[in-house]
Amino acid sequence: MTKNTKVNAAILIIGNEILSGRTQDTNTGTIALWLNSIGVNVQEVRVIPDIKKTIIDTINKLRKFNDYVFTTGGIGPTHDDITAESISKAFSLDYEIHKEAFKILEAYYKPGEFNEGRQKMVWMPKDAKLILNPTSGAPGFNIENVFCLPGVPSILKSMLGGLKNRIVGGEPILSYTISLRTVESEIAKSLTIVQNNNEDVEIGSYPFFQAGKLGVSIVMRSEDQFKIDSCSSQILDFVKEKKIEVVER
Amino acid sequence: MTKNTKVNAAILIIGNEILSGRTQDTNTGTIALWLNSIGVNVQEVRVIPDIKKTIIDTINKLRKFNDYVFTTGGIGPTHDDITAESISKAFSLDYEIHKEAFKILEAYYKPGEFNEGRQKMVWMPKDAKLILNPTSGAPGFNIENVFCLPGVPSILKSMLGGLKNRIVGGEPILSYTISLRTVESEIAKSLTIVQNNNEDVEIGSYPFFQAGKLGVSIVMRSEDQFKIDSCSSQILDFVKEKKIEVVER
Repeated sequence: MTKNTKVNAAILIIGNEILSGRTQDTNTGTIALWLNSIGVNVQEVRVIPDIKKTIIDTINKLRKFNDYVFTTGGIGPTHDDITAESISKAFSLDYEIHKEAFKILEAYYKPGEFNEGRQKMVWMPKDAKLILNPTSGAPGFNIENVFCLPGVPSILKSMLGGLKNRIVGGEPILSYTISLRTVESEIAKSLTIVQNNNEDVEIGSYPFFQAGKLGVSIVMRSEDQFKIDSCSSQILDFVKEKKIEVVER
Repeated sequence: MTKNTKVNAAILIIGNEILSGRTQDTNTGTIALWLNSIGVNVQEVRVIPDIKKTIIDTINKLRKFNDYVFTTGGIGPTHDDITAESISKAFSLDYEIHKEAFKILEAYYKPGEFNEGRQKMVWMPKDAKLILNPTSGAPGFNIENVFCLPGVPSILKSMLGGLKNRIVGGEPILSYTISLRTVESEIAKSLTIVQNNNEDVEIGSYPFFQAGKLGVSIVMRSEDQFKIDSCSSQILDFVKEKKIEVVER
């Protein structure tokens, strides 16, 4: 892989509800697919509990080793929403009322409805840049290379578009899949040879079960379409030789 | 929380397909719910790519800071299945053919079908304890406090039951949910007071959207049913006072 030009990100999911198994995280997939499309590679995901010290320590590690860090969760109005305060501590910044965020929410709610609970959501690290929220008003925020988003999947999704001009990616990461009616052990050896001959293409092999039938999806990933095409034709060569049915490509 | 008696675990999801957003991880939820039921708390989840050094370094960190570590993925027959080799390196153990696993798979497959690809799945760290696989034959394995499971959710699920006598949990972690027809900002202040009065109960607040209506689920977690009951009645007190509808409890 062209390691030098790669732009890397980490995703930090903050929330006891994911760790307990109560809630299924889907934000990782949403953020990862979006980042890939703008040329950013996700090299690590962590899920951690709503504990201030854990959030601070983890953020300080991740922001050092990644070009970008995206957090989800913990920016709502209740006592377990401690992301903004923790991020302030991680950056040694004051945790204070963000004037622009205050104005946005004051205008968003009906007169009298911008109560104490909701006002908690405008407390942020000093000089944070806002990430606008077209769905439910309350903005996320960004400090240096850390971007803090809400945990509710539909709201998070609606906020990503507005971030595009703040993220500088590399070449988009392209992906091509060939699905075969076979089992992994049948193609393991041939696939190893193809991987060794195509070191710049990341080749993954994933068994699937569909309508009661077994199959294997081979996924090729690279920034270079030419390299994917070449790799793909080498795979189709051994597939033809072995008389394996191609289910989809 | 009764920190001293807590038994903690980490889950390590190994696989490029999760980081790219191609595949939605569901194993975290499966493992977490099962662990909670036997009194083990999940304190961290990490998702990392199929890179040997990353797997080795991460395993060596996680096994030091957790009572148990569960890995998923990377124990199949193809070139990208490098978990067993990496775990061997992490523990400085030889990576070799596991005689019992060999016998199991030799008996599992029809004569002549236990080919080179499949034989890769019996290579494990020296003296690994097997984790039997009632679904598809190939066993997982366990070294000290690290348990290596496959990535395919249905297979992983079928293997957990066999592990029960190897995991020593604390008191089961109990959970109780009250769902309200309200928004978080309405109850934030009262809920903070209840949390401060019930430090041994972990209280989470989660907004939901159901059939076009907004609501909030309050989740209480503790090893002590009495403490949950007491906390719950304090919540129902302010709910009644505020005339908020209880949707479910």
